[in-house]
Amino acid sequence: MLHIFFLFVLLFSSSHASVQDFCVADLKGPNSPAGYICKAEANVTVDDFVFTGLSKAGNTSNLISAAVSPAFVAQFPGVNGLGLSIARLDLAPAGVIPIHTHPGASEILVVTQGKITAGFISSANSVYVKTVKRGEVFVFPQGLLHFQVNAGGRKAIAFVSFNSPNPGLQILDFALFANNLTSALVEKTTFLDPAQVKKLKGILGGTG
Amino acid sequence: MLHIFFLFVLLFSSSHASVQDFCVADLKGPNSPAGYICKAEANVTVDDFVFTGLSKAGNTSNLISAAVSPAFVAQFPGVNGLGLSIARLDLAPAGVIPIHTHPGASEILVVTQGKITAGFISSANSVYVKTVKRGEVFVFPQGLLHFQVNAGGRKAIAFVSFNSPNPGLQILDFALFANNLTSALVEKTTFLDPAQVKKLKGILGGTG
Amino acid sequence: MLHIFFLFVLLFSSSHASVQDFCVADLKGPNSPAGYICKAEANVTVDDFVFTGLSKAGNTSNLISAAVSPAFVAQFPGVNGLGLSIARLDLAPAGVIPIHTHPGASEILVVTQGKITAGFISSANSVYVKTVKRGEVFVFPQGLLHFQVNAGGRKAIAFVSFNSPNPGLQILDFALFANNLTSALVEKTTFLDPAQVKKLKGILGGTG
Amino acid sequence: MLHIFFLFVLLFSSSHASVQDFCVADLKGPNSPAGYICKAEANVTVDDFVFTGLSKAGNTSNLISAAVSPAFVAQFPGVNGLGLSIARLDLAPAGVIPIHTHPGASEILVVTQGKITAGFISSANSVYVKTVKRGEVFVFPQGLLHFQVNAGGRKAIAFVSFNSPNPGLQILDFALFANNLTSALVEKTTFLDPAQVKKLKGILGGTG
Amino acid sequence: MLHIFFLFVLLFSSSHASVQDFCVADLKGPNSPAGYICKAEANVTVDDFVFTGLSKAGNTSNLISAAVSPAFVAQFPGVNGLGLSIARLDLAPAGVIPIHTHPGASEILVVTQGKITAGFISSANSVYVKTVKRGEVFVFPQGLLHFQVNAGGRKAIAFVSFNSPNPGLQILDFALFANNLTSALVEKTTFLDPAQVKKLKGILGGTG
Amino acid sequence: MLHIFFLFVLLFSSSHASVQDFCVADLKGPNSPAGYICKAEANVTVDDFVFTGLSKAGNTSNLISAAVSPAFVAQFPGVNGLGLSIARLDLAPAGVIPIHTHPGASEILVVTQGKITAGFISSANSVYVKTVKRGEVFVFPQGLLHFQVNAGGRKAIAFVSFNSPNPGLQILDFALFANNLTSALVEKTTFLDPAQVKKLKGILGGTG
Repeated sequence: MLHIFFLFVLLFSSSHASVQDFCVADLKGPNSPAGYICKAEANVTVDDFVFTGLSKAGNTSNLISAAVSPAFVAQFPGVNGLGLSIARLDLAPAGVIPIHTHPGASEILVVTQGKITAGFISSANSVYVKTVKRGEVFVFPQGLLHFQVNAGGRKAIAFVSFNSPNPGLQILDFALFANNLTSALVEKTTFLDPAQVKKLKGILGGTG
Repeated sequence: MLHIFFLFVLLFSSSHASVQDFCVADLKGPNSPAGYICKAEANVTVDDFVFTGLSKAGNTSNLISAAVSPAFVAQFPGVNGLGLSIARLDLAPAGVIPIHTHPGASEILVVTQGKITAGFISSANSVYVKTVKRGEVFVFPQGLLHFQVNAGGRKAIAFVSFNSPNPGLQILDFALFANNLTSALVEKTTFLDPAQVKKLKGILGGTG
Repeated sequence: MLHIFFLFVLLFSSSHASVQDFCVADLKGPNSPAGYICKAEANVTVDDFVFTGLSKAGNTSNLISAAVSPAFVAQFPGVNGLGLSIARLDLAPAGVIPIHTHPGASEILVVTQGKITAGFISSANSVYVKTVKRGEVFVFPQGLLHFQVNAGGRKAIAFVSFNSPNPGLQILDFALFANNLTSALVEKTTFLDPAQVKKLKGILGGTG
Repeated sequence: MLHIFFLFVLLFSSSHASVQDFCVADLKGPNSPAGYICKAEANVTVDDFVFTGLSKAGNTSNLISAAVSPAFVAQFPGVNGLGLSIARLDLAPAGVIPIHTHPGASEILVVTQGKITAGFISSANSVYVKTVKRGEVFVFPQGLLHFQVNAGGRKAIAFVSFNSPNPGLQILDFALFANNLTSALVEKTTFLDPAQVKKLKGILGGTG
Repeated sequence: MLHIFFLFVLLFSSSHASVQDFCVADLKGPNSPAGYICKAEANVTVDDFVFTGLSKAGNTSNLISAAVSPAFVAQFPGVNGLGLSIARLDLAPAGVIPIHTHPGASEILVVTQGKITAGFISSANSVYVKTVKRGEVFVFPQGLLHFQVNAGGRKAIAFVSFNSPNPGLQILDFALFANNLTSALVEKTTFLDPAQVKKLKGILGGTG
Repeated sequence: MLHIFFLFVLLFSSSHASVQDFCVADLKGPNSPAGYICKAEANVTVDDFVFTGLSKAGNTSNLISAAVSPAFVAQFPGVNGLGLSIARLDLAPAGVIPIHTHPGASEILVVTQGKITAGFISSANSVYVKTVKRGEVFVFPQGLLHFQVNAGGRKAIAFVSFNSPNPGLQILDFALFANNLTSALVEKTTFLDPAQVKKLKGILGGTG
């Protein structure tokens, strides 16, 4: 009877030659609007679906006293085509994740340690801010400006998941002050004072 | 023979009881993640697919010397569920559309009069700026910060289309300075100077 | 100058009458294939985007020594239309989340305490199993059978996020043994022995 | 132990209050871009997922010697939100399904009796025509003009499936000649001779 | 006049250099989350859109007295990117398609011969079972466990269509008993008796 | 302090190695169902997001006294994956864009000069026609037959945007008369008179 079942298995397996339950990214290969080209299924192991890089705290010895450790497709090729990714936020007591957007995804945050004041602003210009603590969840709609700030006296940790393998990350300060967009254009399109623009471009390494 | 064809027509029309080529929004009705509930097909006329509100220039007698006249679903219910919307930009000689994002859509702009310097910043913090003139097209990827500035000495007009009936519009200055997000949080998450924040909140009517 | 800006704000706000950055579910209202009808924007507060129910451990005093505490749209209406949801897994030392699928979403798991052996089986019938510990991440592709088992001697906690507000949850044992699917059909379509089927139907309360 | 499992079942069932594996259409209710509002789950039975209307041949005693019997959402509410629908084609010996498109879906056809010559034309204006017989399959890409013609001397039957609950159906002859589009416009936009337009409008009941 | 039209044709054809009405899979090439890379349009013929492999009955001389003959993208490259695929089910009198899921698609079944008892179980653990006969249709929502069993005394045939070129196929018995998932894990996550697991692993060729 | 920020920038930029805000098409590379493979980000400049080809009028010295100048992905690789494209219509006084469909997208038209009578026919065979002038907008749902005709005595110009980088374009006259679809099949599936078919095939260069 065993051989009969093997025949049956064969009948099915021949149709599974190109199962696409997943499509682990071949990061050396090209990208497409839907994601990377898939690594050959024969070379896929469980390690493609596991990411260990978020087990250590990110280094918060910096000006913002915070760190974002991403597991997007570039770090975690297994998420390619699966519609998800994740990152870890570490905030030292004065820590701040500066205001930013994710052009490509919504975000769901869960606090695993400490207290975080999180918020976003909607297109209608309404403000939604709340302090959340361990085990509490905050969801941020796609593409809207949002931030997280440590609200307690001790370090805070959160995990944030996104409904895209590559949600993007546009940090406002970098976009305005850390590239070569001319000061004239920054001032013109933001109404910020020239002195302010000059100061932050200086700190963030922008030119122009 | 006519009656045979009518029979044939009937055979088909009975299957068309709920054709959903379109779904003109019933703006008095509820909204859903995919768009508004549809107006009854019997009440749909060609006027639901035509919008005349962009034929006049928007009023540019304001601080930014510019105007945006939208034909999103709220103004043009016919676009509900069709994946598109459009708006008109008018820029007087010193006109500026302040830096902003559309959380929900990419944007394609065509200049119909004058010259416009347009640009966007990517998540990778690269800057893409160019001056375009009549008949020229600029495309802005979804969710990224971008702006348009009049680059000539006379008024400029452009039409911008979006791949969503409701692309959203988050203007940076409004999000930071024109609502009740506390100055403390604005300063903390943007590193802007308190004096700058206070000044722009004052001008834009923000509180907190 | 203030009044000029208010005029400008008005120009924009009139176009924001139906911004759809989000669509908090009106759970008393009807559902549609894309999600629930939206609650009126005027009634939306930050509490719609915050969920506190996962801050307490689920009750693991049961046969599987485990609990799943969901924050799907039914518990957390704010995720409606945002493409995300989350849940908390608690596993006591012998805890097991029985083998199951999520028909509607992929899942990304992060361990926040203890050690968990997690795994899934692909359509090609390959098995992917690994033990993950605190801070480590495992991703499960949509629709595939998977499970989590406590791998350590102390309690384990994980948070799992899904790329749907309502990923669904089909637990194999319930589907086979806890409803009124006839024993004859269960035996016929699974090749399980009648005695096995009868036993588990007895335990799980199935009939037929 | 039974009561423990019931407790476990309860834990899960409370989270299933709004499972959306399916969304049987409430055809008396409103439609939305994603489909009809869902019928209450408590009122759903297996009969919502079964359609018996295609078991009889359609009536082919008409000019085209053919019939299309649809099971789109209007006839088969259970397909609402499931991304599929189906129809039955009956072609008497001289039968013809006149050239038409489905704006909203691709189509996959399987012949269950007889022989059918089927074909489509691509946007690049290439023609793909072949005669298929029982058990053979032809796939038609979304939105392209296509047709089926009986290729044998006896009746032919086929089942066609679509990747939409409501693929739409635009029959060329109806669109040009069976409504009130003015003859002037028809002639202008098709370059057909006035006599031809007048003749077919007469047969198909068009006006204007 | 002919040459004027050719000029017109040229104007259009130059813009059609990369029409993507379809994207016949190059099965020797790589896969991506959205499907295979396209075969060059110049090499596409009507045979790419026709599949003849379902015209013969599958071989039902096996333990389940049934066969599934797929026309997924691996067999039928023309469906790549078109959102559809199809398969043929043959059930001898005692035939059974064992309980299984399609992670990636919904399924619509039409019986073309005989009688089939078909059913699925929902996430809410409700059972939907009915016997359908020739010409009758049953739809199965995506990702849910379902089965088909011959309900008559003679052979039954059905065609099943899916709203994906590659719906996936997870057969429960194979997933539990026909691979190297350890018996310990199978028992732990299914609560099946060790003897049952050992027996079926033996029959199905599983190890571990 | 500068070095601290650079460290911070590095933390982020390492996660941006594969940002996919955009995916400029490598037109020499392969296509996939979701679009072309992306050009390397390092080679992307602002010129990839700008298209100048619509600044000149198309040549309307032809039989239809009209021209369509597309900026689809084949002409404008920057739109790849962004969900948008655009084209320019020029109509001389007697100009006509013959009746056609876009299988893959809806279309939104804005008139920038002159007057255009535009219209479409729905699947339910209702006709929606209106004359629009400068600044006025007409939206055409995906896949439906539509046309534009110059309604004034002077030349008309419009820009049309689509919610796809490659909407496709099926011109009815070309599909029926400008290829090798046999006259027999054309007559059979359209009920057009043989003389009409022969005449237009002759003019449009069709064979068969």
